[in-house]
Amino acid sequence: MKNENLDMSLLLDFYGEVLTYRQREMLELYYDDDLSLSEISEQSGITRQGVRDAIKRAEKQLFEMESKLKLVERFGRIRNIIGEISQHAENIYNINRGGVCSEEINRSAIRIARLAEELSAE
Amino acid sequence: MKNENLDMSLLLDFYGEVLTYRQREMLELYYDDDLSLSEISEQSGITRQGVRDAIKRAEKQLFEMESKLKLVERFGRIRNIIGEISQHAENIYNINRGGVCSEEINRSAIRIARLAEELSAE
Repeated sequence: MKNENLDMSLLLDFYGEVLTYRQREMLELYYDDDLSLSEISEQSGITRQGVRDAIKRAEKQLFEMESKLKLVERFGRIRNIIGEISQHAENIYNINRGGVCSEEINRSAIRIARLAEELSAE
Repeated sequence: MKNENLDMSLLLDFYGEVLTYRQREMLELYYDDDLSLSEISEQSGITRQGVRDAIKRAEKQLFEMESKLKLVERFGRIRNIIGEISQHAENIYNINRGGVCSEEINRSAIRIARLAEELSAE
């Protein structure tokens, strides 16, 4: 049943707050902590079928949010561009290794690489 | 009545799709096109008070989305980091002007600046 095609953790990260606490908790146990439906059922005291239905409903809400707002898609494009920026920063650093041309170029290249990391963590 | 404190255009850009077509249209006329309540009333055939109420309700929904998902805030941080990256790329380009040290460093610096522009457009 697990939806492997789309990154449910990302959808949860972006839109999880529109779900109820209970829905979010179940999805997190299922997708982030990789518990089975039976294990979540035991933990929560809800039948396995009830857990399954609740997860399906919550997933549907998350998919609907993404189909409307497309923010996971937008962030995906941003991640790709950040990756390219990192590569170019590394390229500059490598060409200029040891500050042959300029120490300041090295410092700026390192700073760009760090900023790109910060962006990735957003 | 216009809410100048928060960038309503940004909220609309992120969360507009959760509104009805009519709500979105009114907010766009009001905030993006800067029409008055009376002008929107004339255009839409709804009373001025009706337009006002509809806009207030739609604004409330957008604020609620942001208070839950905080994606405008997240993008704001991203924008700041992108600005810093651009500055460092410009710095590298300026130090290395004319490719004194390396043509390839110039090319990478220009590419980073362009990628940062692409990011800003996301």
